[in-house]
Amino acid sequence: MKLVTAVIKPHKWEDVREALEAFGVTGMTVSEVSGYGRQKGHTEVYRGAEYDVALVPKIRIEIVVDDQDAEEVVEIVVKSAQTGRIGDGKVWLSPIDSVVRVRTGARDVEAL
Amino acid sequence: MKLVTAVIKPHKWEDVREALEAFGVTGMTVSEVSGYGRQKGHTEVYRGAEYDVALVPKIRIEIVVDDQDAEEVVEIVVKSAQTGRIGDGKVWLSPIDSVVRVRTGARDVEAL
Amino acid sequence: MKLVTAVIKPHKWEDVREALEAFGVTGMTVSEVSGYGRQKGHTEVYRGAEYDVALVPKIRIEIVVDDQDAEEVVEIVVKSAQTGRIGDGKVWLSPIDSVVRVRTGARDVEAL
Ligand SMILES: Nc1ncnc2c1ncn2[C@@H]1O[C@H](COP(=O)(O)OP(=O)(O)OP(=O)(O)O)[C@@H](O)[C@H]1O
Ligand SMILES: Nc1ncnc2c1ncn2[C@@H]1O[C@H](COP(=O)(O)OP(=O)(O)OP(=O)(O)O)[C@@H](O)[C@H]1O
Ligand SMILES: Nc1ncnc2c1ncn2[C@@H]1O[C@H](COP(=O)(O)OP(=O)(O)OP(=O)(O)O)[C@@H](O)[C@H]1O
Ligand SMILES: [Mg+2]
Ligand SMILES: [Mg+2]
Ligand SMILES: [Mg+2]
Repeated sequence: MKLVTAVIKPHKWEDVREALEAFGVTGMTVSEVSGYGRQKGHTEVYRGAEYDVALVPKIRIEIVVDDQDAEEVVEIVVKSAQTGRIGDGKVWLSPIDSVVRVRTGARDVEAL
Repeated sequence: MKLVTAVIKPHKWEDVREALEAFGVTGMTVSEVSGYGRQKGHTEVYRGAEYDVALVPKIRIEIVVDDQDAEEVVEIVVKSAQTGRIGDGKVWLSPIDSVVRVRTGARDVEAL
Repeated sequence: MKLVTAVIKPHKWEDVREALEAFGVTGMTVSEVSGYGRQKGHTEVYRGAEYDVALVPKIRIEIVVDDQDAEEVVEIVVKSAQTGRIGDGKVWLSPIDSVVRVRTGARDVEAL
């Protein structure tokens, strides 16, 4: 199993969710986070000067998926979260050993 | 080392925490998240129709544990978070390379 | 690629961020969490008695880094978050398969 973690712009959340659902993703976990990337949270890069970091609000999405879907889910999130402007976010993929549905105890693919 | 991540119903948090403590877990990290599973956050499944997703509040728990305890900790969380009704949550297990206690620099089993 | 996750005291966040920037870290994701460790959130250990757990507010930082920087980034976070008093936090390192910059589709080291 794999875990896809995405940090995206809040206003793109609906687009990402719809794209994932069209693909067949059955669930996800969402949280409010903040962060910064190469521009330190500013809309322009001021080279050579020291500027404070601004934490920009983002949405963090976690999706547990089957191995065979993992790469495609990453691509779907990237495509649907893209605006082409700075701060669009990051998506990372990590290994997980197993997942359990709490209600039934079902494991792995049966737990999704 | 392993990381156990659990997304559970908020009102089950106390039960889960007590069960983990009885086992000997010494710490955990908790956050407020929301999410949905197969029923898209609704209490009934309306097949064949398109319905909006409702994000349901959940509690996310992260527990770093020694490899030899990992499977048992997963089982304890699953058992103690179970109500038998939909939306009970998911628990997943992932590999971690190492953990450090910030105060002392102690690593891995000594850091727990 | 690696993911460094740190749970630290909120008032140490600026120090940690500055130390990471001095090293060359280009971005991070931050969230508000709470938790407890060996003292169950209390400032003293009352041995042998049963006490309730107190959830103490902490800051959770996630930093995706290149493999070759991972150990040094862990050390920098540990050093800069340290006060020497209980509750200073935990830092853990986990493997990730890949990371993508959403705006450009760049991957792994090019995505940072
Ligand atoms: N190395 C990183 N580790 C963890 N999270 C990161 C990292 N870099 C960025 N993020 C998260 O992703 C969010 C968006 O980053 P952002 O898209 O600005 O990255 P970027 O590399 O600066 O790309 P761009 O040039 O397109 O802005 C940040 O607010 C932060 O939450
Ligand atoms: N694939 C997933 N990836 C990440 N988080 C998920 C996933 N599926 C569910 N979750 C999280 O777990 C919470 C509870 O899910 P839920 O228990 O409803 O799963 P389910 O598969 O629908 O099981 P049930 O049929 O028992 O309701 C969701 O609100 C969401 O936060
Ligand atoms: N095993 C664990 N798994 C996940 N998070 C943990 C764990 N232990 C502690 N934490 C997180 O780290 C925070 C700080 O823990 P803390 O520094 O008190 O650990 P400790 O082992 O008790 O060390 P100290 O003796 O220095 O207090 C907790 O509030 C919690 O969020
Ligand atoms: Mg940026
Ligand atoms: Mg459900
Ligand atoms: Mg402690």
